[in-house]
Amino acid sequence: MEKIYLDYASTTPVDPEVLQAMEPYFYENFGNVSSSHFFGRQASKSLEDARDVLAQFIGAQSQEVIFTSGATEANNQAIIGVARSLKSKGKHIIISSIEHPSVLAPVEYLVKEDGYSVTYLSVDQEGQVDPDEVRDSITEETILISVMVASNEIGVIQPVEEIGALAKEKNIYFHVDAVQAVGHVPVNVEDIHCDVLSLSAHKFYGPKGVGALYIRKGTKVLPFLLGGDQEYGLRASTQNVAGAVGLVKAIGICQEKMAGEMKQQSAWRDKLFTEVSRRIDRVVINGHRTRRLPNNVHFSFEKVQGESLLMSLDMVGFAASMGSACHSGAMEPSHVLRAIGLSDDLAFGALRVTLGRWTTEDHINRLLDELPNMITGLRI
Amino acid sequence: MEKIYLDYASTTPVDPEVLQAMEPYFYENFGNVSSSHFFGRQASKSLEDARDVLAQFIGAQSQEVIFTSGATEANNQAIIGVARSLKSKGKHIIISSIEHPSVLAPVEYLVKEDGYSVTYLSVDQEGQVDPDEVRDSITEETILISVMVASNEIGVIQPVEEIGALAKEKNIYFHVDAVQAVGHVPVNVEDIHCDVLSLSAHKFYGPKGVGALYIRKGTKVLPFLLGGDQEYGLRASTQNVAGAVGLVKAIGICQEKMAGEMKQQSAWRDKLFTEVSRRIDRVVINGHRTRRLPNNVHFSFEKVQGESLLMSLDMVGFAASMGSACHSGAMEPSHVLRAIGLSDDLAFGALRVTLGRWTTEDHINRLLDELPNMITGLRI
Repeated sequence: MEKIYLDYASTTPVDPEVLQAMEPYFYENFGNVSSSHFFGRQASKSLEDARDVLAQFIGAQSQEVIFTSGATEANNQAIIGVARSLKSKGKHIIISSIEHPSVLAPVEYLVKEDGYSVTYLSVDQEGQVDPDEVRDSITEETILISVMVASNEIGVIQPVEEIGALAKEKNIYFHVDAVQAVGHVPVNVEDIHCDVLSLSAHKFYGPKGVGALYIRKGTKVLPFLLGGDQEYGLRASTQNVAGAVGLVKAIGICQEKMAGEMKQQSAWRDKLFTEVSRRIDRVVINGHRTRRLPNNVHFSFEKVQGESLLMSLDMVGFAASMGSACHSGAMEPSHVLRAIGLSDDLAFGALRVTLGRWTTEDHINRLLDELPNMITGLRI
Repeated sequence: MEKIYLDYASTTPVDPEVLQAMEPYFYENFGNVSSSHFFGRQASKSLEDARDVLAQFIGAQSQEVIFTSGATEANNQAIIGVARSLKSKGKHIIISSIEHPSVLAPVEYLVKEDGYSVTYLSVDQEGQVDPDEVRDSITEETILISVMVASNEIGVIQPVEEIGALAKEKNIYFHVDAVQAVGHVPVNVEDIHCDVLSLSAHKFYGPKGVGALYIRKGTKVLPFLLGGDQEYGLRASTQNVAGAVGLVKAIGICQEKMAGEMKQQSAWRDKLFTEVSRRIDRVVINGHRTRRLPNNVHFSFEKVQGESLLMSLDMVGFAASMGSACHSGAMEPSHVLRAIGLSDDLAFGALRVTLGRWTTEDHINRLLDELPNMITGLRI
């Protein structure tokens, strides 16, 4: 049975060209960047070349980018590293209520262990943060605002430019989790006015285990991994050059293909929205209909157990998700679906379909053929 | 000019068989371990298989091993994660004075930020910790002892079995940084009686960006990366399955070749010790002559600038080191060489030569041919 992967938001296969670009860095150009000899200098040059390309892609300077082990580490450092560096200035943090767990958890940690306070921004029924609520939430103590560029679950794109302008006006650091957006839609640190930005290679056809953190020049951030002066002293650990090269190759391919992929995927996304709504009753589309990632399709079906739906889809070869992969198996409804006001019934009846580079029209059509009977059969 | 790599302690090239083993995990078996569908289950199975092999290799149970982004993260979590989980029990930590910066730095952090206290164990002139000093350092408040299995700089193997037995007797957690030892000499958590152990793939012909942390069943350790329940809730982040597979393949090859490599490398090591001492005057061997890693050769030359020596070697194609790669470029003498009592002159005149899988008799002979004149020329 052919397997049809429709869970690109969870992770992506590495583009074969990316692996090809990485290969020389495993056993030819393999040196430790910290070594002063030929092998070290060669590795260091490769890493800095990668850094240059990545920086340029997001509109940054090379010295403003460090490589990390992925999104979780980048988000953890963004929150904990910024908050702790500013603890004498204030201890109030503002984040949206639909952030990824790798942003939520370090904020909760700071609240519990270090006496910080947090304001969670609500989202409207379409999943969007209101910049006015951000403005109203700012206090004298506010040191950091963190709002994701696009939701990993419902794909909604947030008004980060407006929030960024506000943060800049108020002289408060602004972090954006751009993990789900980078490689899929244009992301530029100058447009967003962000001070810190996180991204992860495996979300855009790069390898797992490597991500990056943009830190605007002059922004105070403490290192998270301790014990070495790598990455401008902001991240100890022998650099994963092959990973960095893979991330950057992946980003280059995305840049080249982005316009075409955005157009194609949003057409299929809209076709799924239209056709599912036409062929199946008692279904809602989650998240803003157009201010969302081109590849994100998210429904809730009344009186359908999402887990059962996923299993049924899996049995006929479709890989999809209820929302965040990190929530798989959890019995709690998604905090994102709660935040947009869904009833438990609808929150548990969720289906996330995310498209990608190897999605075809045939995949979309076959999903549309399968879904109606499946929903009818599963409805209680 | 042929480049001769003699810096295997700094990092190793990935064994081509390792990359071959990793390849399917980039774009065939690429799923997110947290996903419930086919691709996720397939990835999860591969990760658990890798975990089984790694656990068996170090004498552990599968559930006692988590994968990390490398040694630094593993050591950071071992120190901070254990210490914070036991803060109500006590706040005293004992470590050797020659630990790697990724152990030293988190300990210093705990001392500075969280009011912990630390006792640094001295080492003798041959670089060894005295278990009696460990015993004498234990107080009612002691919650953690951390001593490396083998020094990354001078290669000395520590009496970790005796320290482990003592820690067990006193009911104090024992962490070992086994980063430099694993894959090169037998390492078994039961023999060492350790509760926590760190290792890193790129030190034994595996990829950079992946390591592991052994945590004995029942040992209290807090997660370090926050925001997901991966790795038994001890490390949030999408798992790097290709990396884990590579680590484990690398370890399998090491297991197969270890006896032969130990014999061959220690013969070359001893030849270098004998011949350099015979051909060059005013040279000392750093670290215990036999209780050391088979591949570690470490000298100090009187009245020779180590940096200049490295540059001269580099110019004729040899890649070697002064000690830790992490110290490259630093103007301070190595804390390890200070700890064994070297004068500044000798500490600055250090040369570390570390052998590996692709070292040949010819490399050794060519180094022996070059060194005497080079030292004569550089001596001030």
